[in-house]
Amino acid sequence: MSCHIHELKERAGLIWNLYDVRSLLGWDQQTKMPRNGAAGRSQQLASVEQVAHEMLTAPSFVELLRRAEEASAPLGKDDEDRAYVRQVRRRYDLAARVPAPLVAEFSRATSSAVEVWVEARKNNDYKSFAPHLRKVFGLCKQIADHRGYQEHPYDALMDEYEPGISTAEVGAVFAELRPFLSDLLERVGEPSPSSNLLRQPYPEAAQREFSHFLLQQIGFDFEGGRLDDSAHPFCSSSSHGDVRLTDHFQENFLSPGIFGALHEGGHGLYEQNSPARFDGGPLRGGCSLGVHESQSRLWENFVGRSLPFWKFHYPILQGHFPRQLSGYCVEDFYRSINQVGRSFIRIEADEVTYNLHIILRFEIEKDLLTGALDPDDLPEAWNARMREYLGVAPPNDSEGCLQDIHWAFGLVGYFPTYTLGNLVAAQLWRKIRRDIADVDQHLLSGNCRPVLSWLKKNVHDLASCYLPSEVVVRSTDGPIGTAAFMDYVNEKFGALYGVGTR
Amino acid sequence: MSCHIHELKERAGLIWNLYDVRSLLGWDQQTKMPRNGAAGRSQQLASVEQVAHEMLTAPSFVELLRRAEEASAPLGKDDEDRAYVRQVRRRYDLAARVPAPLVAEFSRATSSAVEVWVEARKNNDYKSFAPHLRKVFGLCKQIADHRGYQEHPYDALMDEYEPGISTAEVGAVFAELRPFLSDLLERVGEPSPSSNLLRQPYPEAAQREFSHFLLQQIGFDFEGGRLDDSAHPFCSSSSHGDVRLTDHFQENFLSPGIFGALHEGGHGLYEQNSPARFDGGPLRGGCSLGVHESQSRLWENFVGRSLPFWKFHYPILQGHFPRQLSGYCVEDFYRSINQVGRSFIRIEADEVTYNLHIILRFEIEKDLLTGALDPDDLPEAWNARMREYLGVAPPNDSEGCLQDIHWAFGLVGYFPTYTLGNLVAAQLWRKIRRDIADVDQHLLSGNCRPVLSWLKKNVHDLASCYLPSEVVVRSTDGPIGTAAFMDYVNEKFGALYGVGTR
Repeated sequence: MSCHIHELKERAGLIWNLYDVRSLLGWDQQTKMPRNGAAGRSQQLASVEQVAHEMLTAPSFVELLRRAEEASAPLGKDDEDRAYVRQVRRRYDLAARVPAPLVAEFSRATSSAVEVWVEARKNNDYKSFAPHLRKVFGLCKQIADHRGYQEHPYDALMDEYEPGISTAEVGAVFAELRPFLSDLLERVGEPSPSSNLLRQPYPEAAQREFSHFLLQQIGFDFEGGRLDDSAHPFCSSSSHGDVRLTDHFQENFLSPGIFGALHEGGHGLYEQNSPARFDGGPLRGGCSLGVHESQSRLWENFVGRSLPFWKFHYPILQGHFPRQLSGYCVEDFYRSINQVGRSFIRIEADEVTYNLHIILRFEIEKDLLTGALDPDDLPEAWNARMREYLGVAPPNDSEGCLQDIHWAFGLVGYFPTYTLGNLVAAQLWRKIRRDIADVDQHLLSGNCRPVLSWLKKNVHDLASCYLPSEVVVRSTDGPIGTAAFMDYVNEKFGALYGVGTR
Repeated sequence: MSCHIHELKERAGLIWNLYDVRSLLGWDQQTKMPRNGAAGRSQQLASVEQVAHEMLTAPSFVELLRRAEEASAPLGKDDEDRAYVRQVRRRYDLAARVPAPLVAEFSRATSSAVEVWVEARKNNDYKSFAPHLRKVFGLCKQIADHRGYQEHPYDALMDEYEPGISTAEVGAVFAELRPFLSDLLERVGEPSPSSNLLRQPYPEAAQREFSHFLLQQIGFDFEGGRLDDSAHPFCSSSSHGDVRLTDHFQENFLSPGIFGALHEGGHGLYEQNSPARFDGGPLRGGCSLGVHESQSRLWENFVGRSLPFWKFHYPILQGHFPRQLSGYCVEDFYRSINQVGRSFIRIEADEVTYNLHIILRFEIEKDLLTGALDPDDLPEAWNARMREYLGVAPPNDSEGCLQDIHWAFGLVGYFPTYTLGNLVAAQLWRKIRRDIADVDQHLLSGNCRPVLSWLKKNVHDLASCYLPSEVVVRSTDGPIGTAAFMDYVNEKFGALYGVGTR
């Protein structure tokens, strides 16, 4: 390792350790912090952020970075070193290109927007939120301009969450996906009314215990992780040996708790299997939100909503809830957890409709950013697209364009990563089924290890050394596309709903 | 507020927020962190430490400090500003006077010493530990020389934990206390064998619940704090609204859990009642280890081992443990929790003998520091003093000079603060009894609020604005001395053991 790269790593290590500390502070804030700690915590978070930012943008650090770039440029140099330097540069550019006053204004604007959004959603009062939305998107546009982009300002925003992907690429993929999904939904028709299998009293303690067991089953290591309660499930990590999942159990609804555990567990496995040598630096952990989501969705849906998986685990679930489940067989359960429905709400959506919710948001936020859509016209545009894509419109804005917190938070360009994750998961799953011919047999016997080993070798081991698109090519033999996902939903829901493949 | 002081506070605020973050990381490490998080956490702690150190000793910060000192110097200037600047200077001097290579060497030496100490204590092998002890004390002497001192190198070490106190002062106080305690212990004689009231099976969950209740009783606010389990009890805070206690419950011994809770609760109340305006800066929280210990001891011993307190709380304790306690009355319990004994072990010692353990350590570590005692001769010196002060000698070094981790950790000059805390607690308790004539009536009815209000007004509100000696004078009308403590133990243990006052 060159001396310049060594010097960069010494300094960058301090900064990335501060980022890891920030993760832990955030976890604690959502899980353990006493109520009166809020004011102090927000100061501590802001201070860690400011100190890390100062260190990252200090002229002496930029000079270290420049010298390390020169030293790592020649071909034949260590690939990981090159990746390290590239990731530092990426973070530097994100931090340095946007002027500090704009960052501060954005932070103030999104704070207010979140506050107003909470009330607006509660009172179905979109009008009060519209000016805040206008402000946030205006600032997002300025941020995009400062960051720079080749074709579309949305490129610059999406790049923060999914490095290297373009609006045009995403648009092309979504354009294929949308009519296919609308058509499949049409064929599924009006689903028969759901059994109330999942909606019975399920004591939280037993749900937690079963979720803990499921996480062990899929290979989550509790020597290097935890499971706690929080208002919304999330995964947070500060090293490969300290990965923390949270879940939220609903007393009268079984799915959110156990599928939340599998979802966050999928994120957690990606972080736990990041090679130890990357700890405390920019190469640790998942390479993008989309690839991260491919891991959570793979375990939640492709494994976790499959019949072989539940043929093994359902009897154990019944053991936890004999009174609630003794009257239902595993096929009843399988149908219940895979019910397709035309919901207004994204987070309640199934595997077929979920991506339609995302495509709608992608199209709308792109237009809000360029000004093609005026914030005053958002509800109308939202409802029109809902009717077109899902065949239903929400009865009010609270269940429509006010349902997500993302835009109030300033998270623009984030939504597409959910669908990219689903598509990548499908490609990985297809590859896994080819590479491990007897994967169903393994799942039928409760053995998830072959799947995890495959992911570890083909995805987790790469950590953040490559762009997401490179990871997908390396692990699935091809670029991100729609074919694997279409085949998967066609086959699965075709069988479930007795509708033929077109 | 002058502009220079404002600038100092902006910058120092970042540094002190990092110190607060470090506290939280430490708490998490001892309570929630998964086992495999250890390596990452130690990197994170070291990084936060290094970054805070760099910021504190940066030339630009020293310049800010110098200008703030000039601006705050004139008489009539805001006292709190002056205190703020003084505390920053104090921390700067502690950080800057010792050269970085020496700090690093000390850190390495104490890490090794702790490792060796763990094994040495386990195997009763003092010889293997002796060279490490020699190394640590040698480095302590160098550190003292760099810090500077007026009379004794020990002054420079003690000053870190108890600002402003001198070896001579402590020596004078201890010289009065030692013969008095040895004499009292003589008069108490061989105590009658203890009842096994406290040593029965006490389920941990019920102990935890009762300790939680006791903490509420003494006024600990769980909206701004927590109680968790850890291997050794401690109190940690990162703001006045986030104060975390830990305790360790023993299934077959009741005292450690409930008195641990009261002890840490006393520390916690001091931190919770630090005025909110001091959060995120050097004036927040307790002013020294000694004054902190006065708060923990006041609640643990002066309130928490008193008969009025238990006349109210014992029936409730019996309700938690009916099988264990129904055969014992409150007087039985009171005698059990106040039994005097000639133990070899400091942390098991009672109110009479505890300070003899401390005086012994004070005398020995002073001599180790100056070279008057050679580390090879420590066991002999230890055992000789044990026989002289307590009338017993430990059967082996593991129960003798190897029992405490402090010296291995490099904590030299720390032990005296335990006894200073006991003395200050006695002075505060005497003053409280004068100011609140019916304090026993309040305790008899389970009302601890008048005591807490008094402490809040006379101690907690001062936070770290004054030197410990000033806090003692302000709150007890006099300097630290032995009279109040002697009167207290004479009266309490005279009555308990039927021995007259000399």
